[in-house]
Amino acid sequence: MAEIVTVSRKAHFNATHRLHNPYWDDVRNEKVFGKCNNQNYHGHNYSLIVKVTGEVDPETGYVIDLGVLSQIIKEHIEERYDHKNLYMDLEDFRDLNPSAENIAIRIWLILRDKLDDRLSLRIELYETERNFVEYSGPELIK
Amino acid sequence: MAEIVTVSRKAHFNATHRLHNPYWDDVRNEKVFGKCNNQNYHGHNYSLIVKVTGEVDPETGYVIDLGVLSQIIKEHIEERYDHKNLYMDLEDFRDLNPSAENIAIRIWLILRDKLDDRLSLRIELYETERNFVEYSGPELIK
Amino acid sequence: MAEIVTVSRKAHFNATHRLHNPYWDDVRNEKVFGKCNNQNYHGHNYSLIVKVTGEVDPETGYVIDLGVLSQIIKEHIEERYDHKNLYMDLEDFRDLNPSAENIAIRIWLILRDKLDDRLSLRIELYETERNFVEYSGPELIK
Amino acid sequence: MAEIVTVSRKAHFNATHRLHNPYWDDVRNEKVFGKCNNQNYHGHNYSLIVKVTGEVDPETGYVIDLGVLSQIIKEHIEERYDHKNLYMDLEDFRDLNPSAENIAIRIWLILRDKLDDRLSLRIELYETERNFVEYSGPELIK
Amino acid sequence: MAEIVTVSRKAHFNATHRLHNPYWDDVRNEKVFGKCNNQNYHGHNYSLIVKVTGEVDPETGYVIDLGVLSQIIKEHIEERYDHKNLYMDLEDFRDLNPSAENIAIRIWLILRDKLDDRLSLRIELYETERNFVEYSGPELIK
Amino acid sequence: MAEIVTVSRKAHFNATHRLHNPYWDDVRNEKVFGKCNNQNYHGHNYSLIVKVTGEVDPETGYVIDLGVLSQIIKEHIEERYDHKNLYMDLEDFRDLNPSAENIAIRIWLILRDKLDDRLSLRIELYETERNFVEYSGPELIK
Repeated sequence: MAEIVTVSRKAHFNATHRLHNPYWDDVRNEKVFGKCNNQNYHGHNYSLIVKVTGEVDPETGYVIDLGVLSQIIKEHIEERYDHKNLYMDLEDFRDLNPSAENIAIRIWLILRDKLDDRLSLRIELYETERNFVEYSGPELIK
Repeated sequence: MAEIVTVSRKAHFNATHRLHNPYWDDVRNEKVFGKCNNQNYHGHNYSLIVKVTGEVDPETGYVIDLGVLSQIIKEHIEERYDHKNLYMDLEDFRDLNPSAENIAIRIWLILRDKLDDRLSLRIELYETERNFVEYSGPELIK
Repeated sequence: MAEIVTVSRKAHFNATHRLHNPYWDDVRNEKVFGKCNNQNYHGHNYSLIVKVTGEVDPETGYVIDLGVLSQIIKEHIEERYDHKNLYMDLEDFRDLNPSAENIAIRIWLILRDKLDDRLSLRIELYETERNFVEYSGPELIK
Repeated sequence: MAEIVTVSRKAHFNATHRLHNPYWDDVRNEKVFGKCNNQNYHGHNYSLIVKVTGEVDPETGYVIDLGVLSQIIKEHIEERYDHKNLYMDLEDFRDLNPSAENIAIRIWLILRDKLDDRLSLRIELYETERNFVEYSGPELIK
Repeated sequence: MAEIVTVSRKAHFNATHRLHNPYWDDVRNEKVFGKCNNQNYHGHNYSLIVKVTGEVDPETGYVIDLGVLSQIIKEHIEERYDHKNLYMDLEDFRDLNPSAENIAIRIWLILRDKLDDRLSLRIELYETERNFVEYSGPELIK
Repeated sequence: MAEIVTVSRKAHFNATHRLHNPYWDDVRNEKVFGKCNNQNYHGHNYSLIVKVTGEVDPETGYVIDLGVLSQIIKEHIEERYDHKNLYMDLEDFRDLNPSAENIAIRIWLILRDKLDDRLSLRIELYETERNFVEYSGPELIK
């Protein structure tokens, strides 16, 4: 028997994006993405919740030290994306439309690599208070 | 392997209800439902979170277009329930006590019918900030 | 010189109302109040912030004991309005349309009477997160 | 004696901006505005609270019909700024740095022009949950 | 087939704690727990969400009466922990570091004992808005 | 004519306190302060909003650089009070009951000293979401 707990840490970053599929023409991009396709970009205050699940260490009472987790998020996510244009300032979304879904998948991949294998990871990403997405890693197709 | 993401959209409606079982007498209704049984009704600002899970479309980066989901919620839920008396203005709760549980089940049934079969659906319904329910569809009894 | 501080207490009540002017005919009521005129009522989770301003007592460090203020709000506002139909269950809005403005004025009058004359009073009333009103008592017309 | 009430309506728009003074060179812009000077822009989910103060109409119980106020905000602010690049997509900030202060002043000027002279107006603009500004119109220097 | 719904109730308590492992020396405690090890304690406004899952009773439309659940939380959690020093005022954390993880486990154990066996229980505990944990009971090690 | 804008910055600190008047005996302290007098302390997550009012600088569009204001709050308030016991860890409340009112006054005095004389200052301090105070400096008794 083990005490499995999920610990979560909330973070924020402000960024600019534009929904756009470079393999489509302008008419189709405009039709599918509407005002989110604005060629001059628009922006969001993204809120990010990083959820880490694992066994509680009996000596510390921690699944993971939230100060350590907070530092990992700061270094690898906030410094990478905050006050950035997701298209022009970095490579991450050169060939990938920066929908909330794809940003969440990208953040999961970055953080997965920084965490102990015994911990599992789930990402919640809020584009606005009313629109948000969740991702827990790739799944086998049933 | 597939990228399965959950996307969520938050909506609101203000409605009036009264907890009441028409097969019980007044004494039992008053005893079980207390002030929520007030025959002159009381109301809530309901907050609704609609959570849709499915594969990310590689061309759009979307599970479902949140603009489309938002429009489905507006047309089939908000216009149906907003500024309504859940008892007197519609048929939905003629024989069903409009507890938060039952309203969530009713909303799930309405929306399930409007979504692609490959998508799964979960409903969160907040009666107040402190009281809320979640429903993901009927389950086989184990 | 005096230390003047404003202390605030937040409270909640759920109620049903209907916007309606009894001196108008149905057509005009419907035209002016739209869906808020629904004869079967609709409801809100009202949030109330009671703001009391006065001198800090040097012995207690209090303007007013927030436990006392909280009890006054509970007894005179929450018990009066919570889970009530503002039209049918009480006299307050027999001749007064229960708009957020008028409910705030009514609450101010009730609480003003329970507070020490050296304290001043301001009411904030949230009908929803996006619609709210503030009232500080009657003012001389300039 | 008059019943003076303030009514407020909350709205939202997502936009992209960049802090930049065109009369300064790049070194000074970078020094003063830091990461907010990113030439590729960054974005925010702005929250706007429009506060209108005036006398309560005894017939309607309204200072201003919140449906009307909401429509004015939608038409003149949300449609103007939502999903826009505040630099490239409109004239408003051609010669004016789009700091939260200046955006709030600009919104006040637009809305002031649409409201009855007997009403006074105050703008609150949230750039993030932690950074926000308020403006009530120009004041005489004392 | 059964209608399985999760109902949730939010509660609050303010308490003081200190992260400290009594089997470690001061240097190691300071190194691992940092400012959270302050021997004079620090405090939090804890927010607690109690989530109860079960079948909807067809007569009441309830999984559990939220008034009853609220009363159980008040009596067994809020009265136990509110305005308390988690170290000095009670036995619960004599030999257990009061990390958010351990407090959540302790609350789950207390509430599990008060609920019908047919209901399942999940605890969410917010130490701050940005740091929170979730626990659903002990799990078999896979 | 001048453009006077108020800019606000939100911050947080977690601290432990106890309401206690050292010139009173234990019976009177217990009677007046109730559970807030617990000799083993209790704690809060304080939220602080610092509001600074002044003229907009036409070159920067700023009243005050929010990065600078944020740094002042961090250095002089957060580092002073966060994860501290307001009684035992510092001198500020040796002779002053740490009620929310008195903490707000103390924070105002500290920050007033760090800001340009042309700026005016208002403090909002939230002890919990439902209890909060505001202070704008000493006033002449009318």
